[in-house]
Amino acid sequence: MKVLFIGDVVGSPGRHMLKEYLKKLKLKYRPDVTIVNGENAASGKGITEKVFHEIKEAGADIITLGNHTWDKKDIFDFIENKPEMIRPANFPPDNPGTGITYHKTGGQTIAVISLQGRTFMPPIDCPFRKADELVEEAAAKTKFIFVDFHAEATSEKQAMGWYLDGKVSAVVGTHTHVQTNDARVLPEGTGFITDVGMTGPYDGILGVEKEAVLHRFLTNLPTRFEVTKGREQLNGVFVTLNKQSGQAESIRSLMINDDQPFFD
Amino acid sequence: MKVLFIGDVVGSPGRHMLKEYLKKLKLKYRPDVTIVNGENAASGKGITEKVFHEIKEAGADIITLGNHTWDKKDIFDFIENKPEMIRPANFPPDNPGTGITYHKTGGQTIAVISLQGRTFMPPIDCPFRKADELVEEAAAKTKFIFVDFHAEATSEKQAMGWYLDGKVSAVVGTHTHVQTNDARVLPEGTGFITDVGMTGPYDGILGVEKEAVLHRFLTNLPTRFEVTKGREQLNGVFVTLNKQSGQAESIRSLMINDDQPFFD
Amino acid sequence: MKVLFIGDVVGSPGRHMLKEYLKKLKLKYRPDVTIVNGENAASGKGITEKVFHEIKEAGADIITLGNHTWDKKDIFDFIENKPEMIRPANFPPDNPGTGITYHKTGGQTIAVISLQGRTFMPPIDCPFRKADELVEEAAAKTKFIFVDFHAEATSEKQAMGWYLDGKVSAVVGTHTHVQTNDARVLPEGTGFITDVGMTGPYDGILGVEKEAVLHRFLTNLPTRFEVTKGREQLNGVFVTLNKQSGQAESIRSLMINDDQPFFD
Amino acid sequence: MKVLFIGDVVGSPGRHMLKEYLKKLKLKYRPDVTIVNGENAASGKGITEKVFHEIKEAGADIITLGNHTWDKKDIFDFIENKPEMIRPANFPPDNPGTGITYHKTGGQTIAVISLQGRTFMPPIDCPFRKADELVEEAAAKTKFIFVDFHAEATSEKQAMGWYLDGKVSAVVGTHTHVQTNDARVLPEGTGFITDVGMTGPYDGILGVEKEAVLHRFLTNLPTRFEVTKGREQLNGVFVTLNKQSGQAESIRSLMINDDQPFFD
Ligand SMILES: [Fe+2]
Ligand SMILES: [Fe+2]
Ligand SMILES: [Fe+2]
Ligand SMILES: [Fe+2]
Ligand SMILES: [Fe+2]
Ligand SMILES: [Fe+2]
Ligand SMILES: [Fe+2]
Ligand SMILES: [Fe+2]
Repeated sequence: MKVLFIGDVVGSPGRHMLKEYLKKLKLKYRPDVTIVNGENAASGKGITEKVFHEIKEAGADIITLGNHTWDKKDIFDFIENKPEMIRPANFPPDNPGTGITYHKTGGQTIAVISLQGRTFMPPIDCPFRKADELVEEAAAKTKFIFVDFHAEATSEKQAMGWYLDGKVSAVVGTHTHVQTNDARVLPEGTGFITDVGMTGPYDGILGVEKEAVLHRFLTNLPTRFEVTKGREQLNGVFVTLNKQSGQAESIRSLMINDDQPFFD
Repeated sequence: MKVLFIGDVVGSPGRHMLKEYLKKLKLKYRPDVTIVNGENAASGKGITEKVFHEIKEAGADIITLGNHTWDKKDIFDFIENKPEMIRPANFPPDNPGTGITYHKTGGQTIAVISLQGRTFMPPIDCPFRKADELVEEAAAKTKFIFVDFHAEATSEKQAMGWYLDGKVSAVVGTHTHVQTNDARVLPEGTGFITDVGMTGPYDGILGVEKEAVLHRFLTNLPTRFEVTKGREQLNGVFVTLNKQSGQAESIRSLMINDDQPFFD
Repeated sequence: MKVLFIGDVVGSPGRHMLKEYLKKLKLKYRPDVTIVNGENAASGKGITEKVFHEIKEAGADIITLGNHTWDKKDIFDFIENKPEMIRPANFPPDNPGTGITYHKTGGQTIAVISLQGRTFMPPIDCPFRKADELVEEAAAKTKFIFVDFHAEATSEKQAMGWYLDGKVSAVVGTHTHVQTNDARVLPEGTGFITDVGMTGPYDGILGVEKEAVLHRFLTNLPTRFEVTKGREQLNGVFVTLNKQSGQAESIRSLMINDDQPFFD
Repeated sequence: MKVLFIGDVVGSPGRHMLKEYLKKLKLKYRPDVTIVNGENAASGKGITEKVFHEIKEAGADIITLGNHTWDKKDIFDFIENKPEMIRPANFPPDNPGTGITYHKTGGQTIAVISLQGRTFMPPIDCPFRKADELVEEAAAKTKFIFVDFHAEATSEKQAMGWYLDGKVSAVVGTHTHVQTNDARVLPEGTGFITDVGMTGPYDGILGVEKEAVLHRFLTNLPTRFEVTKGREQLNGVFVTLNKQSGQAESIRSLMINDDQPFFD
């Protein structure tokens, strides 16, 4: 089983990169399933139904979310009808939506789980205990289990990788919007990267206009954050899983930008 | 001017990697100056005079520090006598030590500045305004200015890179202990990477035993954090600066570990 | 049913105030049960078995704890054998000890529950949902339910008061070490105060030597925090509960210090 | 010199309480100067020019602000023209407005200073060093110096009180919206209270509808916070200063609500 995962898509530049490169990446890597983190896909914050369909049409099978899940009111109208879109599973129990989904491909099933961290983030339920619960549920159905861990602190993300090493196929971090250079298969067979990075503007600060972010840091005054225009990038990872064991055989990071152009 | 920078050295595994590879890296890259972040060099927290000399003897010209600067009491006895060791310049004004140093090499002078971020970190003086002040001071003496920005949030680190783009030779982030995959020369000529990563254990969590970190995340109980034994890694960056302008011509990340062995 | 509650006892000055005034307060108010928050009772951080017995002998029936529960290693040896000492119930599930206890007095039973907040505090399980669970359990046994909510933010503490209004006899806040001037019976019959305050030094900063705390704020340098010597204070609340309904009939704050001496 | 200070005025209920009671309080206490914290005066967040005039007409001589200073865009149009309205002085240096003002009354001058804390709040300049600077400036002009320290943590607020003890007439805390029961004159003559509390709704959570705040705590979902309607309260302090020394002779907290009605 081969998995293509695309890091946080930011606004129209991010969606543009999906339209431009997702098909090419699929031709090159031939993934069995394509997962896209879409928490910033609608103007940098949240997702709308229109944007959901845009991402699906660009080639995503599964969409994961994160701390920006609820930023667009629209989502409350369609999240319950889209089982292929998941938000962090350890959000409070009455929250709309779900944090686990199953995708069938080529006679196989892959479980995709979304979890969110707590260090430097709002207090929610323990992601490690929630992982135990969902991994047990998923393991009863399939040996292919893929986890998007949306978290800020490198310590918490690496902790999740080691915690689930040998129990799931892969743990990929999202949220910091900067790809880390540490993709590897952990000793017990779990593919891991601290952060996949983001897909959107290449010359902003995490996708936002740098002037606005600097103004905020320098003055603390209220500042409107807009998605940057201009050059664009795509960040992702490609993971190959062993058919028999479900363990990761390889994980490699993907990056497309002006300095590192795409080659077929 | 060529600069070799080594990310946060963690405990004896980190120092061991310096002894093992710093000479080899120097033979390969021929840097004019070698800078090492040593904030975790003494058993994972802080630095002692003995460790200071160990790092110098391994080949460091300059040592930078960070939020762990004061973790070993020993430092108060020797920091004032070591101008080549700097702590974040935006610490409170009465703190011992200094945040800027000048190093002469081959008839040239390079200024090295240490700053610390504030997002998700203890409140200190504004790093951006302190940067203005020190860059002005340094620019009166040299066109080669190198900044170690010790910060947690990717947004604050990228903000500093863009803020100083064109004003300094390079801004390299430290503190998260995970190398990012975004080393690049910004449009106005400043070499930048969000985080250089760390030098020490390869199989722990940011250098610490993974069992202890997981115990803390799962139970919140008091847990003793020890530097992990076993396999080791080195993380760094190599930056080439234009002789005339002081601007970065190239920046590349360096990584040595079992999965990516060193080649001469 | 009459309840006397004493706010966070800090170090030997706090214990001294208990010995000096608990008997006098009991003679004056004739409580059916006396509850003491002891999270800072051993040298300002945590509790030891010796100190536990000291507090019991001074007149406490129940001891509650908070974020300093585990600060003295000693506690792991005796917490399981002291059902009358409780730590926040929403700590991770495998933590030693328990967060609810029942006390019999005059043919009646009172349940005492300890919970901890999350705003500006370490991430743990949701105190509101844990309250639901424990209040349901307790309500099956008694109509007298008393909650010590150990939390930092005034918003979270008032939220808990209103959340449990009509479901428990009283919600008293602890942790900020400063008594608030808002003791009242909420509309549905729950006695409430945002913070009971602390029992210990009168002239320090939350019980700690002011010179040390100021040194930390001004320099961020490592500073040893010692319990202040000198003048002392006691902070508490006295709550009367209706025999039939278990609802609070009155809640009044108690304060003893040099400016507000105790009168029989 | 007698000073009346009114805690954070929240929305129209807060302004209504000013109109209802400020004249009565003035008749009763005969203050030489009346200071009102107005950071929440316009619908709970920030202040507009219309509201500014409303508060002045109700009887305020000086208006202080806090972390909500910039919440209404309107403020940028008038803050520079209203020297009697101050925002925290340790905001970044280019921010509009100022953090110190002088008021003349009966042949005397009183300096009023606004500062903001950093613990659990956005990172800004050190309030203690900024206090040094402004107190030195003010002391050259008058012996009457009054400080509104807008801060979250009880430790930081008490630290400021002790830090300025003997250097200023009074330090009163604001921001947590709950009055503390610790008003006192510190040993060197500075009147102090950890928090004055707030002026506005009596039955909400810090002035906000309790249902909304509870919804947020329980679900983390986006929630619109509105100022509560219904019963109202006023919180303040009254401080008397020695004519010769400028030191506080007394400080007493004021509270008006249904449970503690106003008496002439
Ligand atoms: Fe994101
Ligand atoms: Fe995110
Ligand atoms: Fe470090
Ligand atoms: Fe660090
Ligand atoms: Fe305490
Ligand atoms: Fe506490
Ligand atoms: Fe306020
Ligand atoms: Fe405030």
